[in-house]
Amino acid sequence: MSAREKKTTTNSHPISELRQNIITGEWVVIATGRAKRPHDFQTSAPAPEPDLSNDPFDDPEGSGQEKDVLVYRTEDGDWSLRVFPNKFPAFVRDAVPEELSEGPYFAMTGAGFHEVIVTRDPRLSLALLDPLQVAEVIDAYQERYLDLMTKRSVRSIHIFHNHGESAGASLAHPHSQLMAVSVVPEHIEQELGGAEEYYRDYRKSVFATIFEEEQSVKKRLVFENEHFVVFCPFASRSAFEMWILPKRLSPYFERITDEEKIACGSALKTALQALYTGLGNPDYNFYIHTAPADGRDYPHYAWHIEIVPRTAIWAGFELSTGMEVSTIEPEVAAEFLREEVLKNENV
Amino acid sequence: MSAREKKTTTNSHPISELRQNIITGEWVVIATGRAKRPHDFQTSAPAPEPDLSNDPFDDPEGSGQEKDVLVYRTEDGDWSLRVFPNKFPAFVRDAVPEELSEGPYFAMTGAGFHEVIVTRDPRLSLALLDPLQVAEVIDAYQERYLDLMTKRSVRSIHIFHNHGESAGASLAHPHSQLMAVSVVPEHIEQELGGAEEYYRDYRKSVFATIFEEEQSVKKRLVFENEHFVVFCPFASRSAFEMWILPKRLSPYFERITDEEKIACGSALKTALQALYTGLGNPDYNFYIHTAPADGRDYPHYAWHIEIVPRTAIWAGFELSTGMEVSTIEPEVAAEFLREEVLKNENV
Repeated sequence: MSAREKKTTTNSHPISELRQNIITGEWVVIATGRAKRPHDFQTSAPAPEPDLSNDPFDDPEGSGQEKDVLVYRTEDGDWSLRVFPNKFPAFVRDAVPEELSEGPYFAMTGAGFHEVIVTRDPRLSLALLDPLQVAEVIDAYQERYLDLMTKRSVRSIHIFHNHGESAGASLAHPHSQLMAVSVVPEHIEQELGGAEEYYRDYRKSVFATIFEEEQSVKKRLVFENEHFVVFCPFASRSAFEMWILPKRLSPYFERITDEEKIACGSALKTALQALYTGLGNPDYNFYIHTAPADGRDYPHYAWHIEIVPRTAIWAGFELSTGMEVSTIEPEVAAEFLREEVLKNENV
Repeated sequence: MSAREKKTTTNSHPISELRQNIITGEWVVIATGRAKRPHDFQTSAPAPEPDLSNDPFDDPEGSGQEKDVLVYRTEDGDWSLRVFPNKFPAFVRDAVPEELSEGPYFAMTGAGFHEVIVTRDPRLSLALLDPLQVAEVIDAYQERYLDLMTKRSVRSIHIFHNHGESAGASLAHPHSQLMAVSVVPEHIEQELGGAEEYYRDYRKSVFATIFEEEQSVKKRLVFENEHFVVFCPFASRSAFEMWILPKRLSPYFERITDEEKIACGSALKTALQALYTGLGNPDYNFYIHTAPADGRDYPHYAWHIEIVPRTAIWAGFELSTGMEVSTIEPEVAAEFLREEVLKNENV
């Protein structure tokens, strides 16, 4: 039986498969030996009602948060979204990086910016907001990105969202975070380097290759609108991982257009809602991967959003090797999520 | 104030510091803004008494595990350690890797070996065993390594131990695992590549550089015996991370001598015991990093053990960037662990 035949149905898949990330060269393990089906990933109990009695994001300034750097308001004057510096920053705001090397080791001041992006309703995660409200969040991401990318200590900007305790959300009130730092981290370097290398080898963008393949075979597609595709990547690092990729490939998230923001809000909401209804509100992280803000050009890179549900615990093997083990085939996960999207559209 | 002066006391450290892993180039953030002290990392409640009523490792064959591949016995004939194939393997045993590529994507059968290494007493983690019993575990690691490294599909072997639920231990009975796989994973490639590059630049092993620096400045040392040093790495990826490095640097774990195994057992037990008594039995992973078993030589690499306590949750920033944020300086962690070692020696 050829490899291709093996892949035509989801019932005859091998028990363990090594798949390589086409961008970075990293390996993942798809080990379906325990024969999990999508429903096995459903959270066993509904999450407890969040404790919002001491919600510091209900009235951020009143609860000692720093002054807003951005506020969006509704027509009636109430705020709908605000952005302010994190009260417990991981980086020293706007500092000049000072070298702190010791002997053979290199270190420097952790200079940068660490901000919190908060939506109004403490009980509504992005999955439950209107698509336009999610587009507003993306609007805020872009506005803060454009402001911080010009700061002289900033070389890369990282926007991410933690949903649920096991995903690192220490507060129940939905919020995203932005960290602007003076280095380009390893994972981003790997994607940038891989995209360059792929272009050298094939004279083609690796993201265009992925986009065309997913559009053509369709089995990993979850959702699509005029400007975005949502799919489970071939080498998913976690069960039900999804990527949101713009159809107009661009290295730079900050150049997203107004029309694209509206479509992106709809794609992100749809993807998160499929997780919410399909798996019973699982914990997840999502984050934007985009080219660094370091003054260089990255013509063969493409910004995108990665959504990583926290369906498994990283153990010693993952920490040691960086290889992640997922227990469901991305094709099976995509089929399940696609059906959820259809169900949710018909509600 | 110069960088060096800044580092002479632990009270005047900057609130956030970016430190670079000298081997891989990866960055970590040491963010002490929340001013945590070592005692803040103590587990708040003692772990619940493990449920051993259905312990599948008490009588492995009787509970349906596969046949042992290795058994050590005490003088009275009872087993003290046994190794058998994992009942739920992540890899297909001894398979020939078959290519499973699809379109532009590369994949292959997950061929390999996945074994479990179990010590006799279900209630005694390695921290509580005698040093010689821990040496026996290391002996078993080596024996299995030597057997599997010659299998034709095997290119790298990963030995790791998960302690506690949040570290991925699904069974309470202490056990280690071994995975022998047909690829060399990314993290290992990075260390190998970094070691080569360092040697090209400095004509010196990066591990020798680290060993000499830690021996000389002493502030990150936790323990030392005739054959091993235990220290908190300068660019620790987690709070209280420790590395165990042999004084006779060698790329290949499998060449450890009998005398070194006894010293390694003592170093590993001492390190884990310091975590156990100092932090109240926290969850952790440890794993061996060693040169691949792929027939190539890696003269500038050195095998070592990394112990990573699970003191924080990986959230969106870490998943997105690969940069880990630790909230205690390795120097402060080392001082605390060093004192624990002394206390434990005097019990």
